[in-house]
Amino acid sequence: IRLNKVVMEEKKKIKSNKVKKNVNKGQLVLQMFGCGAVAQLVLSSGSHGLFLTVNFAFGFAATLGILVCGQISGGHLNPAVTFALCLLGRERWRKFPMYFLFQTIGGFLGAAIIFGMYYDALWDRPGAFNVTGPNATAGIFATYPGKHLTLVNGFFDQIIGTAALIVCILAIVDPYNNPIPQGLEAFTVGFVVLVIGLSMGFNSGYAVNPARDLGPRLFTAMAGWGVEVFTVRNGWFLVPVFAPFLGTFIGVVIYQMMVGFHEEGEVRDRRNAEAEENLRLTTAPVWCRLGI
Amino acid sequence: IRLNKVVMEEKKKIKSNKVKKNVNKGQLVLQMFGCGAVAQLVLSSGSHGLFLTVNFAFGFAATLGILVCGQISGGHLNPAVTFALCLLGRERWRKFPMYFLFQTIGGFLGAAIIFGMYYDALWDRPGAFNVTGPNATAGIFATYPGKHLTLVNGFFDQIIGTAALIVCILAIVDPYNNPIPQGLEAFTVGFVVLVIGLSMGFNSGYAVNPARDLGPRLFTAMAGWGVEVFTVRNGWFLVPVFAPFLGTFIGVVIYQMMVGFHEEGEVRDRRNAEAEENLRLTTAPVWCRLGI
Amino acid sequence: IRLNKVVMEEKKKIKSNKVKKNVNKGQLVLQMFGCGAVAQLVLSSGSHGLFLTVNFAFGFAATLGILVCGQISGGHLNPAVTFALCLLGRERWRKFPMYFLFQTIGGFLGAAIIFGMYYDALWDRPGAFNVTGPNATAGIFATYPGKHLTLVNGFFDQIIGTAALIVCILAIVDPYNNPIPQGLEAFTVGFVVLVIGLSMGFNSGYAVNPARDLGPRLFTAMAGWGVEVFTVRNGWFLVPVFAPFLGTFIGVVIYQMMVGFHEEGEVRDRRNAEAEENLRLTTAPVWCRLGI
Amino acid sequence: IRLNKVVMEEKKKIKSNKVKKNVNKGQLVLQMFGCGAVAQLVLSSGSHGLFLTVNFAFGFAATLGILVCGQISGGHLNPAVTFALCLLGRERWRKFPMYFLFQTIGGFLGAAIIFGMYYDALWDRPGAFNVTGPNATAGIFATYPGKHLTLVNGFFDQIIGTAALIVCILAIVDPYNNPIPQGLEAFTVGFVVLVIGLSMGFNSGYAVNPARDLGPRLFTAMAGWGVEVFTVRNGWFLVPVFAPFLGTFIGVVIYQMMVGFHEEGEVRDRRNAEAEENLRLTTAPVWCRLGI
Repeated sequence: IRLNKVVMEEKKKIKSNKVKKNVNKGQLVLQMFGCGAVAQLVLSSGSHGLFLTVNFAFGFAATLGILVCGQISGGHLNPAVTFALCLLGRERWRKFPMYFLFQTIGGFLGAAIIFGMYYDALWDRPGAFNVTGPNATAGIFATYPGKHLTLVNGFFDQIIGTAALIVCILAIVDPYNNPIPQGLEAFTVGFVVLVIGLSMGFNSGYAVNPARDLGPRLFTAMAGWGVEVFTVRNGWFLVPVFAPFLGTFIGVVIYQMMVGFHEEGEVRDRRNAEAEENLRLTTAPVWCRLGI
Repeated sequence: IRLNKVVMEEKKKIKSNKVKKNVNKGQLVLQMFGCGAVAQLVLSSGSHGLFLTVNFAFGFAATLGILVCGQISGGHLNPAVTFALCLLGRERWRKFPMYFLFQTIGGFLGAAIIFGMYYDALWDRPGAFNVTGPNATAGIFATYPGKHLTLVNGFFDQIIGTAALIVCILAIVDPYNNPIPQGLEAFTVGFVVLVIGLSMGFNSGYAVNPARDLGPRLFTAMAGWGVEVFTVRNGWFLVPVFAPFLGTFIGVVIYQMMVGFHEEGEVRDRRNAEAEENLRLTTAPVWCRLGI
Repeated sequence: IRLNKVVMEEKKKIKSNKVKKNVNKGQLVLQMFGCGAVAQLVLSSGSHGLFLTVNFAFGFAATLGILVCGQISGGHLNPAVTFALCLLGRERWRKFPMYFLFQTIGGFLGAAIIFGMYYDALWDRPGAFNVTGPNATAGIFATYPGKHLTLVNGFFDQIIGTAALIVCILAIVDPYNNPIPQGLEAFTVGFVVLVIGLSMGFNSGYAVNPARDLGPRLFTAMAGWGVEVFTVRNGWFLVPVFAPFLGTFIGVVIYQMMVGFHEEGEVRDRRNAEAEENLRLTTAPVWCRLGI
Repeated sequence: IRLNKVVMEEKKKIKSNKVKKNVNKGQLVLQMFGCGAVAQLVLSSGSHGLFLTVNFAFGFAATLGILVCGQISGGHLNPAVTFALCLLGRERWRKFPMYFLFQTIGGFLGAAIIFGMYYDALWDRPGAFNVTGPNATAGIFATYPGKHLTLVNGFFDQIIGTAALIVCILAIVDPYNNPIPQGLEAFTVGFVVLVIGLSMGFNSGYAVNPARDLGPRLFTAMAGWGVEVFTVRNGWFLVPVFAPFLGTFIGVVIYQMMVGFHEEGEVRDRRNAEAEENLRLTTAPVWCRLGI
């Protein structure tokens, strides 16, 4: 019996190691392909890209990141999604800081790879290492607000974008609601990211992911763009770090109010029984769980 | 037995509540992403969008709206599709006005979210709150005819577009005809909306959905564009409200004539037996049902 | 017993009626969406389309046409594919002329619908009803060669395009080779049409389908463009009518040489057993069947 | 018994013949559609293409090439993927040179078809048969570095691109990790190629495939562009031939480190048991196998 216990423990350890590794990898893939597409657009001055190609790249990169992770909800790519899973009782709160840390490191490394890949192209562009100005390239890695955007509207923009992301992801992965075939969740989440980019990308570049923004921004601060990446526009960098979590909370509440807590307790499709096992959501409303 | 009846009744009530909630949500998602893409195209003056991105956004937004609703036919996004389902005996006529109302409210709310999201960008644009003119932005929310278009051709345009939509949707969701795997209906309906946008979007922006046009138009009338949104071009707003229903009737007749009322009474694929259960279409031709 | 026979016969009649109706419908859907996208591109002078949108429209329109037909190979949309199925012994030769006729009528009607839809936009454009010149719009409906193209190269272009189409379609629908899930054939054939448009569309607009070209050309001759649609460029219209059949023959031979006539006689996947039943290809090489 | 042996041997021979034939065919399809899209973009001076259309064409062409081959991993399209399968013990090393040879021949033939198809368009362009200069068209067939790119950065670029490709392909086809439905591998690999093009295509055109670059380059050397295709930029042509193999090694090591050698020995999904049979990867780390 003791032996069995040891084996179990070891298995658990291996599993948790695997999770940590996956975290890095998924976010790294997302960041590498996503930032690469922005770099291609910016550095080629539009000859090798469109804003549409950036949208496609981030959408399909999210799909590939999820497939590499092997986690259908994409919770290991985006701290906002991890936060939603914690709110719903699927992940433990104490794991959240570690996830956030590893996701940020993944974003940092993904940005570093793209920096290396386009090193010559960056040096070929005068004034590339500026944060503002016509030749600025800081926007390749992290998001910056458009000239027309105030802090308040930018905060609202990130809240709406993240809430839309969370409602759609929950609808897709919820075994009570979801009618898509098993195995296509990653593609559908990629579609959600694509559509958010097509329709909510003009204000400040749809971060909707604190790690996707903070990791690369740290990298640019160290790689030659300097602390201006944090100070510019009155500390804009705080918006894509904090607003998405508020948007996540709103998204979870909206989803629970609309879907009605599954009073029927019946899974629509037998194929989804297994999915349900993997993704049991608490039936209690999220505001009860928070004692509101 | 009486207890059983009460339980049944309660279940029914819950179900109908769910439906009402879903109605709002699906149309809201469609409107939010779709109008967002038009806003991004118009307000960025083309730097962050193309007409193609609007087509992608409306197509994939329809897919996501259907997935969020959990209704494969998309009948809860578009009153024209609901009308087709009523004609075919799948929905009750008395539910139709409620559906239309909630779909219009969903469109209204979706437009409101996009208005809030791009509030700064709208105010940054001189003359944005005009209905006509070079900087007009009313076209972000509702559809307006191109300069070349007469009312007659615009009416015909909406009839053709809606008839094409209805024929394709019925072919996709009809269990007697449909060879696509279960669970991909939402994606295929999204493709239909995308293709309609690619090929029928130049005249007046392919509303093919009365609620998608009326809800946001009401919002713009209240949000600063004024009653001109209704009076412009001799009351154009009536075309996308009424023409789609005529197009739906024509689409249903064409579909029934072409597919031949399923005299054979045999479902092609066993997997579709369940789908058939959910979507039993009357075998009687629609003009018999209307007493023609 | 006699009664049974009568019933059987009637069923057969109904079925064959269905086929005829489907023929029209699939090609009509393809033509309507495809030509509509070209019309949108040409008439908006590029503001509402790109050559890429035309490619997407023809690809996805092929998918929708196949889904509406309910025939996985798309043989009822394109006489060249019907010709390949006849060569392979899947369709009877005597049905071929009828298929060709109905497919051409389908193309004619699809073009007519788009003509009606964009009637105002056509009249709004000076010189629209010319076959050549800067404002010519005949290219919306049928294909015309680029200025650089000779008849010989144009003929070769259509042969290559059709051969590529046929090899890919046979690989996709062949139950011995095909590893894609059942029900996705229509989407994959659409991808083939899309890719052909992306890479083989510059010379003369990738007809690769005699009915898709002849039907709309007949319509334009009657609708105001005149007989010049046939006489222009030394009778170019014969190229997209005859070259595709030669390309089909070459494609079938290449496919049979490469795949090796399935000597093993074993279907790779049990799910495909049913598909095989629907699509039994002769194992004899096509040149034997033709007595070469 | 002897008879049986002979039959077996013959079957084996047929099978190996089939593999050889398939090799040519898949790479030929990839090359034909991919180079065709570049030709369309370059020769139409942008009117019939975008860099985005080239990305779509190469991505979907990879999908079609894999489907025509009938090999889910795409190992018969790309010597780098074949190399990865050899490293992982799935293919025998002695087969590798033959694969490389046939893949290069496939690329050569694909380029030849596109050359024939766009022969008139090439001659219509003054200075088309130059390797450098504003009208140069050598870049239609093989890849050449951008002006900003040094050899060192170009080498790094190809390593990163190939490593990303290999990690994603292994994650997709690995039965221990992969949660996508069987039969969609080819589409997912196509997505990977598309995303690499969207984000890593600016430096030198993302060959990430020695045969895709060498075969067409040999063709251009013979078809009129001359030996300059090899000598230009200090022998650039060696970079896309050798760097991808180094990238493959790095990709395999990264994949094995991250996924953890599957200590658990348990396939996640019963449907994948068959896939596992087809694609048994060695559980020993790749550096052990190489005696490092």
